[in-house]
Amino acid sequence: MTDGLQEFDALAADKRIDDGANYQWRVAARPVGNVVPTDFEWAVTDIPEPGAGEVLLKTHYLGLAPVMRFYMQGTGAAGERVLEPGDVIHGRGVAQVVKSRHPDWREGEMVQGQMGWQTYKVSKMTDQEKFWRMPPNDLPAALGSGVLGMTGLSAHAGLFACGDPRPDDIMVLSGAAGGVGSMVSQMAANVVGCEVIGMAGGAEKCAFIKEHGCSNAIDYKSENIPDRLDALCPDGMDLYFDNVGGETLEACLERLRLHSRVVLCGSISEYTRDEPFRLSNYTRLRATETRMQGFFVYNHVDRWDAVMEDLAGWIHDGKLEPVQDIEQGFQNMPRALANLYYGRNVGVQCCSVRGEPEEWN
Amino acid sequence: MTDGLQEFDALAADKRIDDGANYQWRVAARPVGNVVPTDFEWAVTDIPEPGAGEVLLKTHYLGLAPVMRFYMQGTGAAGERVLEPGDVIHGRGVAQVVKSRHPDWREGEMVQGQMGWQTYKVSKMTDQEKFWRMPPNDLPAALGSGVLGMTGLSAHAGLFACGDPRPDDIMVLSGAAGGVGSMVSQMAANVVGCEVIGMAGGAEKCAFIKEHGCSNAIDYKSENIPDRLDALCPDGMDLYFDNVGGETLEACLERLRLHSRVVLCGSISEYTRDEPFRLSNYTRLRATETRMQGFFVYNHVDRWDAVMEDLAGWIHDGKLEPVQDIEQGFQNMPRALANLYYGRNVGVQCCSVRGEPEEWN
Repeated sequence: MTDGLQEFDALAADKRIDDGANYQWRVAARPVGNVVPTDFEWAVTDIPEPGAGEVLLKTHYLGLAPVMRFYMQGTGAAGERVLEPGDVIHGRGVAQVVKSRHPDWREGEMVQGQMGWQTYKVSKMTDQEKFWRMPPNDLPAALGSGVLGMTGLSAHAGLFACGDPRPDDIMVLSGAAGGVGSMVSQMAANVVGCEVIGMAGGAEKCAFIKEHGCSNAIDYKSENIPDRLDALCPDGMDLYFDNVGGETLEACLERLRLHSRVVLCGSISEYTRDEPFRLSNYTRLRATETRMQGFFVYNHVDRWDAVMEDLAGWIHDGKLEPVQDIEQGFQNMPRALANLYYGRNVGVQCCSVRGEPEEWN
Repeated sequence: MTDGLQEFDALAADKRIDDGANYQWRVAARPVGNVVPTDFEWAVTDIPEPGAGEVLLKTHYLGLAPVMRFYMQGTGAAGERVLEPGDVIHGRGVAQVVKSRHPDWREGEMVQGQMGWQTYKVSKMTDQEKFWRMPPNDLPAALGSGVLGMTGLSAHAGLFACGDPRPDDIMVLSGAAGGVGSMVSQMAANVVGCEVIGMAGGAEKCAFIKEHGCSNAIDYKSENIPDRLDALCPDGMDLYFDNVGGETLEACLERLRLHSRVVLCGSISEYTRDEPFRLSNYTRLRATETRMQGFFVYNHVDRWDAVMEDLAGWIHDGKLEPVQDIEQGFQNMPRALANLYYGRNVGVQCCSVRGEPEEWN
């Protein structure tokens, strides 16, 4: 391997966790460009004791999202504290209440919320921390760190609240093999009835997305995106769900139909540029009366229960196959994050903190 | 005067029209940058005779819009024929049926539609030409070339169909003294109940817009737009109605509130750049869940009657003062168009083809 990820394997090689301490990953340095191993600091502290009104939580799964690089850079932490070097990295996950001195929470309960990159946490379980009980849906707890977590809420909010998808829409979707993308493609095709053209990198991912909602795939690593779009949707698209930004967004803006919609979910292709990307053709929104809308998942948490009921229902109905890409072991959290920027993950990137056997994926 | 407009006065100086011929302005050369007198060709032809099923129309007023420079360049002519050098320039206006061999139109009727820059036209009055009878609203016919013409439809569609304005919204509006802007500001303030912050160039225009719906004005020629926005709406805006694009759009995208809206109406500051403007901060739409939407007025013509009824009603109610800036005489059409790019007009730029005395403005 010559892609930089092997350095993350070396970072993890001498590290293991156990139940005798609290293990943490902290910000060592603010990332410049892509994350590198020296951006992360491994720390071992005592397991904290819960005080009155507090619980002790034990982490089982943590979810990874592209935004975490921004957290480490001290930006993008809407609703969370801005991180400084030395701080535990933000991250939501699935945990169990192992001690409780809080009247509303009992030992053994499974929860999901803001754990941070650590194996234990003491919490007052305030609203601000956004902890929720895992819903009783007979689905694996691991899904709470991804498909039934913030990634699922993002996919649902982006597609339904922003994208206003309609049956028979031609939807183009970038990042189709990723966490949000693999959910959006299935929901658009199987719940709404859209024709989905997905973009992904490499033959393997393109085969994957064609089994998960996409009727056609564009391999952005080996194919010319504008040419392929012209071939696959010669009359343009009704909906573009953007996970990548950059020139791909520009190519789609050139191929919009009347009253189309553009959902701005992410722009991962822009995150490691030195200069901000500058969009040359936003005025294309005019002639086609296109609505381009961004969304921020934390603005949608008040709809959490209803969204999770939708998602669990579609999983049970076979309309949404939950796909999580699970790194085994807390020591591999930095690599799990790097996977996102290297385009390595298929489905939602998560980490099984304690490396349990995993039925899903 | 040293601003280039005096050359247009020289262009007009030796030209006059009468009822003995059809006078025309044609494309002489495709404009490069701003329009210049040598882009226009004066032509005199015979008054055409209507055949069976046709009418002869006599032009009284013509409206001017920034898009006309694009028509002359051979672009932007959605719904109209692409212009080549030698063609009569596209333009809508108010005319009278002076001969009719068409069963549905009688002599003396006033109409508005695609006349082109000429003093007579023979028409089959097909749907494609988009001719309408002037509505019976007891308002001056001149308004049909602007406030009650395509400019009015643009202002209405942009504000209501795209902007979704709400009472107490803080709306920022660029180009507030212009044709669309002077209508949008009054409708937003007086019909909807928004607080409108307008931008215009120069003290005189700023005084004007404060008498036409704007509670505050920013003079973009002498003031720093970001600083003034920070002072006038420190918590940001709910709605930005964009007539200018460029850095002004960027400054507003930095100052959006949650669930705000951006209406892309025009980008006149970008039209004469050599390179397309490249928007550096479109990703600001994400954190605030802002909806940025363009519109194209020709997509709204099916709502013509209802929109005109709204506008005429608001004029009668005193909520909308119609402001038209009327050049006198067909020979001044090139100058009337140049006024737009030089920021000279206040209100909707029109031309009284026959230079009649004009009660309005």
